[in-house]
Amino acid sequence: MAEAVETLEGWYCLHDLRTIDWSLWKQTAIEKRKQAIEEFQQLLSDCEHVEEQEVGSHVMHQVIGQKADLMFMFLRPTVDALMELETTINKSQLGEFLKPAYSYFSVVELTKDRARRGEDSPAVQARLKPILPKWRYMSFYPMSRRRFQDENWFTLDKDERKGLLYEHSKTGRKYAHKVRQVTTGSVGFDEWEWAVSLFTDDVLQLKKIVYEMRFDEASARYGLFGDFYIGKYLTKEALNNYLSL
Amino acid sequence: MAEAVETLEGWYCLHDLRTIDWSLWKQTAIEKRKQAIEEFQQLLSDCEHVEEQEVGSHVMHQVIGQKADLMFMFLRPTVDALMELETTINKSQLGEFLKPAYSYFSVVELTKDRARRGEDSPAVQARLKPILPKWRYMSFYPMSRRRFQDENWFTLDKDERKGLLYEHSKTGRKYAHKVRQVTTGSVGFDEWEWAVSLFTDDVLQLKKIVYEMRFDEASARYGLFGDFYIGKYLTKEALNNYLSL
Amino acid sequence: MAEAVETLEGWYCLHDLRTIDWSLWKQTAIEKRKQAIEEFQQLLSDCEHVEEQEVGSHVMHQVIGQKADLMFMFLRPTVDALMELETTINKSQLGEFLKPAYSYFSVVELTKDRARRGEDSPAVQARLKPILPKWRYMSFYPMSRRRFQDENWFTLDKDERKGLLYEHSKTGRKYAHKVRQVTTGSVGFDEWEWAVSLFTDDVLQLKKIVYEMRFDEASARYGLFGDFYIGKYLTKEALNNYLSL
Amino acid sequence: MAEAVETLEGWYCLHDLRTIDWSLWKQTAIEKRKQAIEEFQQLLSDCEHVEEQEVGSHVMHQVIGQKADLMFMFLRPTVDALMELETTINKSQLGEFLKPAYSYFSVVELTKDRARRGEDSPAVQARLKPILPKWRYMSFYPMSRRRFQDENWFTLDKDERKGLLYEHSKTGRKYAHKVRQVTTGSVGFDEWEWAVSLFTDDVLQLKKIVYEMRFDEASARYGLFGDFYIGKYLTKEALNNYLSL
Amino acid sequence: MAEAVETLEGWYCLHDLRTIDWSLWKQTAIEKRKQAIEEFQQLLSDCEHVEEQEVGSHVMHQVIGQKADLMFMFLRPTVDALMELETTINKSQLGEFLKPAYSYFSVVELTKDRARRGEDSPAVQARLKPILPKWRYMSFYPMSRRRFQDENWFTLDKDERKGLLYEHSKTGRKYAHKVRQVTTGSVGFDEWEWAVSLFTDDVLQLKKIVYEMRFDEASARYGLFGDFYIGKYLTKEALNNYLSL
Repeated sequence: MAEAVETLEGWYCLHDLRTIDWSLWKQTAIEKRKQAIEEFQQLLSDCEHVEEQEVGSHVMHQVIGQKADLMFMFLRPTVDALMELETTINKSQLGEFLKPAYSYFSVVELTKDRARRGEDSPAVQARLKPILPKWRYMSFYPMSRRRFQDENWFTLDKDERKGLLYEHSKTGRKYAHKVRQVTTGSVGFDEWEWAVSLFTDDVLQLKKIVYEMRFDEASARYGLFGDFYIGKYLTKEALNNYLSL
Repeated sequence: MAEAVETLEGWYCLHDLRTIDWSLWKQTAIEKRKQAIEEFQQLLSDCEHVEEQEVGSHVMHQVIGQKADLMFMFLRPTVDALMELETTINKSQLGEFLKPAYSYFSVVELTKDRARRGEDSPAVQARLKPILPKWRYMSFYPMSRRRFQDENWFTLDKDERKGLLYEHSKTGRKYAHKVRQVTTGSVGFDEWEWAVSLFTDDVLQLKKIVYEMRFDEASARYGLFGDFYIGKYLTKEALNNYLSL
Repeated sequence: MAEAVETLEGWYCLHDLRTIDWSLWKQTAIEKRKQAIEEFQQLLSDCEHVEEQEVGSHVMHQVIGQKADLMFMFLRPTVDALMELETTINKSQLGEFLKPAYSYFSVVELTKDRARRGEDSPAVQARLKPILPKWRYMSFYPMSRRRFQDENWFTLDKDERKGLLYEHSKTGRKYAHKVRQVTTGSVGFDEWEWAVSLFTDDVLQLKKIVYEMRFDEASARYGLFGDFYIGKYLTKEALNNYLSL
Repeated sequence: MAEAVETLEGWYCLHDLRTIDWSLWKQTAIEKRKQAIEEFQQLLSDCEHVEEQEVGSHVMHQVIGQKADLMFMFLRPTVDALMELETTINKSQLGEFLKPAYSYFSVVELTKDRARRGEDSPAVQARLKPILPKWRYMSFYPMSRRRFQDENWFTLDKDERKGLLYEHSKTGRKYAHKVRQVTTGSVGFDEWEWAVSLFTDDVLQLKKIVYEMRFDEASARYGLFGDFYIGKYLTKEALNNYLSL
Repeated sequence: MAEAVETLEGWYCLHDLRTIDWSLWKQTAIEKRKQAIEEFQQLLSDCEHVEEQEVGSHVMHQVIGQKADLMFMFLRPTVDALMELETTINKSQLGEFLKPAYSYFSVVELTKDRARRGEDSPAVQARLKPILPKWRYMSFYPMSRRRFQDENWFTLDKDERKGLLYEHSKTGRKYAHKVRQVTTGSVGFDEWEWAVSLFTDDVLQLKKIVYEMRFDEASARYGLFGDFYIGKYLTKEALNNYLSL
C-alpha cells in the first residue's frame, strides 16, 4: 500500500464564477443599477479591509468566453466565512444579475516535505495564508491524478511520486518569475482532487507553463484536467466601466 | 463466481439537496416570507418529534458553493414516509423557492460480519437506525466500486474484498474520534452503489480522511466517486437568519 | 462471429416519467386543478378499460427523489397506440404541469429458448403480453452489455452467453416469490439495450436482488447500468390526495 | 498506415428534431394556431414540390418518447438550401412552438467500391440523390467506429475493413425487403462519423436488424452508437390532427 | 521524458457561437429590430476597420443545425481586446437575442520548426497574424491528443511526434488549394488542446480532409475531437436578410 503524504492546510478557498444576465441588467433602471454596483463595491471594500488585516484575501476577474463573466477567488480562515460571503453575494442587489456558472471549494495545501522550516515559520505561514497577487491575469482549473490500471498515482510508491513531482516542479520553476501558483486541495471537498490558480502579468505564460508541464510524466501519464477559466483582474472601481451600458 | 456479502438494512434514507431561488425570494413580500419560514420550521419541528420518538432522524445543512444551498438528510423506517416528506416540502410555501439540485435514495446498510452480536442486539439496532449527529459539518458523496477488466470488485474473492475493506477500515478508525460515518447502500436504488455521509466538528477532517483513505487499495484501485457536498449544520431557528434579507 | 439469439416480441412499452411543476400547480385555481385531475382520472379509466380487455396494460407510480415525480409504464400492441397515449397526456390539462423527466421505448422480449412450448402457447403469450402487477413498489432501469476488448458480450460464444445467463437466472429465481421482472428489449429503439422493470411488495427486495445479481459474471463483467427509478404504486384515486394542496 | 476508402457524395442531409411546447400551444388562440398550421403546411407543400422536381427529398415523423416530438429529415443539393430550410422553420409561426431537440448534419455517402457502374450511372445517381421512402416508421441514429488500442477501425488494413463490412452487409441484406437504409457521412461535419436512417413498415424490424447486426464484428467490436430516434410517418395533413387540442 | 516543442504565438483568438432567440425576436417591433441590426453592423464595420489596419481579423458565419446560429471568429493582439469585443456584443441591442451557445479561447500557434526563416520574417509574421479568409464555408472544432497507456502523445519521443505530424501534414497538403487551415493552441486556455478552423469554398472538402486525415496515425491513434461547427460566410449586409421576418 502506498503511503499518503502529510499535508499542512491553511486558508479555505472558494472559487465562485458567475454569468451576468445582461438582458435583465439592461431592463433595469439606471438608478437601481447604480445602487447595485455601489452596494457591491462596498462588499468588496469590506473584503479589502479583511485583506488588509491579513485575515483573508480575494481577487475578482473578468472571464473570457461564455463559461462565466466574473470569477471571484476568496480565501478565508473558516468555511463559515466563505459561506457567509457566498450568501452575501446572493442576497446583494447585484446578485440578482449574477447567475451561477461554476464554483469550487478547496483549502490551501502544502506538503510537509515542502515546509521544512516548521509549520509555524513565517515563510510557511505566508504560503498557507497567501495574499493573492493582483496581477493582470489568472487561470483557474481543477485537476485529479489518474487511478487506472498501471497508471495509478495512488498506488505509486511515495518516492516515485516524489520524484515525478520534483521533475514537475523543476519545469514550474522556470516560470517562477512570470507565474505565481496557488495550489489548493479538494479531495473529499469537491469533484476534483486539486485546484490550481495561476497568476501572471503576461497571459501567454498561462499557456506556456501548462503546455510545457504536460510533457512531464506527472501530467502526461497521471494528470486529468477539468475546464480552464482565464480571467483579467478587475478592481472594484473597474466594475463601473464593465457594467456600464 | 464471487460470493455476495450478506447485509442487514435499517432505515431508508433520502438526501434531498435544494437551490434557493434568491431572485424570487427577494421579490416576495416580507409577510409571505415570514409565513413560509414559520410553516417550514413547523415541518422541521414535526421531524424533531419523530426523532425524539426514535422513529426517524434528520439533519439540515447549508451547502457551500453553487451545487446546492440546502441539504436535507432524512432517515425513516419506510420509503413511503420519505416520499411523504419530500412531497410535503414540495407543497410547502418555502418549497416554491427550493429548486431541485440533487437527491439520493439509499438505505442504512451493515454487513452481517460487522453485526456479530446478532441483528436484534441494541448495538446493531442502534447502527441500523442511527440518530444523525448534530455536528458542525457534514459531507455527502455517492460512490461505486470499479468493475473493469482486472480491477473488478465484484469478481474479487470474498476474502480478498474483506481484506481490502479491513485495511480500509483501519484508516477510517484513526479518525474515529473526529469523524462519524453513516454508510447507506443504493445498489438498485440509485445511480451509485453506496452513499457516504460523514459528520465532524472540524471540516478539515472531511478532507483528511478521504485523502488518506484514497491510498488504500480499496479506494485507489476500486473506488469511483460522485460529487462531494459539504454542509454546515443549521438548526431550524438558524433558517431565520439564513433567509433574512 | 457470435450468433444472435432469436427473440420473440410482444407488446410495445413506454416508460414515461414526469416532474410536477408544483409552483405552477399552486398558482392554479382549485376549480381548474380539480378539472385537470378528473380529466386525467378519466384517461386512466380508459387505460383500465384497455387492460380489462387485455389489449394493453399500465401502472402509475410516485417516484422517490428529484429525478421524477410520476412514472407511467404503458404496454400496447402497437407503437402507434403508445404515441397516442403520450400525446393525450401532453394535451391533457394536467399535462401542463407534467414536465418531461425521462422516457424509454422498448418492447417485451423473450428469447426463443425460453419459449419452448411454442410461441402461440398461452403461457408464452401471457409473458409476451403481460398484465403488469399492481404491487406496492417497482423499479425501472435501462442496461446494456459491455462491448470492450476482452469483455465483449457480443463476441462471446452463444453457449457461453447462455451459461452466464443461466447462472444469472438462478440468482433471480431465489427472488421469484418476492420480485416479478418484466424485461423489454430496446436495441435500436433507445439508448440502452434493455429495460428492466421489477415489481415487489417489499421495496428492500429491489436492492437485494440487484445487489446479489451484481456478483454474477453476467453483471459483474458485462453489465452496464443506467439510472434507477424507484416508485410507489398509485391508483388513479390516489392522485387526489397526492395532488391536493 | 491504413488507406482511406474513396467515397462519392450526393445530397446534403439535415436531421432536425423538435419538441413541441404544448403549454404555449394551448395558450394560443385557435385562429393563430390554425394559421400557424396552414403556413407550415404550405412550407411542406413547397418541399413536396422540390421532391417532385427531384432536386431534394424529405420526410416528417412523429417521435416516440420525450427526446423529441417531430423529426424532419431533409435532403438538398447544397448546404445553403438546408440552412435556408432551417431558418424558414425558425421564422415560421409554428416555429415558435418547436423548441430545438437535436439536429444532425451529414451528406449522402457511397463508397466507390459500391459504385462499380460509374458515378454517373442512373443507379448510382439514384443512390446519391435518394427520394426518401414514405414508409410507416423510421429510425435515426448517429454512430462512429472505435479508435482505441487494439480495436481501432482507422488503423485496420483496408481489406480487413472491407471484409468486416461485407459480413455486416450480408446481415443487412436479410432485411432488404423489410428495411431500407440511407447512410450519410459526417466525419468533419458533426459529432459522430455517420448517421443511419432506417425506413420500414414494421417498426419491430428496426430493432431486429440493429440487434442482429450488433453481433457482427464491425458492430460488436468497432461500433459506437449515439441515441436512437424512432418516428412514425406524418403527412402534412396529419399535422392538423396531431396538433388539434 | 519527452521534450516539448517550442512554439511561436501570434494573435489571440475567440470563437464565439450564439443561438438566436427567434421567439423574442419576433415579438420585437420592427423599428427596434432595425436599430439592433444597424448598431450591430456598425460594430462589424469597426471590426473591418481593425482588419484593414491589420491589427486583427474576424469572420461571421451562419451555422447549420441547432448547435448555434451565428459563429464569430475574432483575432486580436491581446486578450483584453477580445474581452472587450465579447462585452460589446453582450451589451449591444442585438445581444439580447444572441444566447450563448459555445465559445473557445486560443491563440494562433506555430511550431518553431515550421518557422525556419526566423520569427520576424514577413512570412512567419503573416502566419502568426493571419487575415482570415472570407471564403464561403468554414468548420471549427477543438481537439486534443490522447494521453493513455501506450497511446500517449505526450510521452512519445519528439522525433516520433515529428514524423507522425509530417505524415499528417502531407495528407493536409493535398488539400492545400481547396482548404486553408488556421491552428490555434489552447493548452491551459480552454478545455481542449487545440482548435482547428478550416476555410473552403466547397463545403464537401471539410469532410474529405478530416476523413482522409483520420487514417493518419496522428489522428487514428492520438486524435480526440470535440464537436464540429459548420458555417456559411455572412457579410454584415447579409444580416439584414438573415434576420428579416
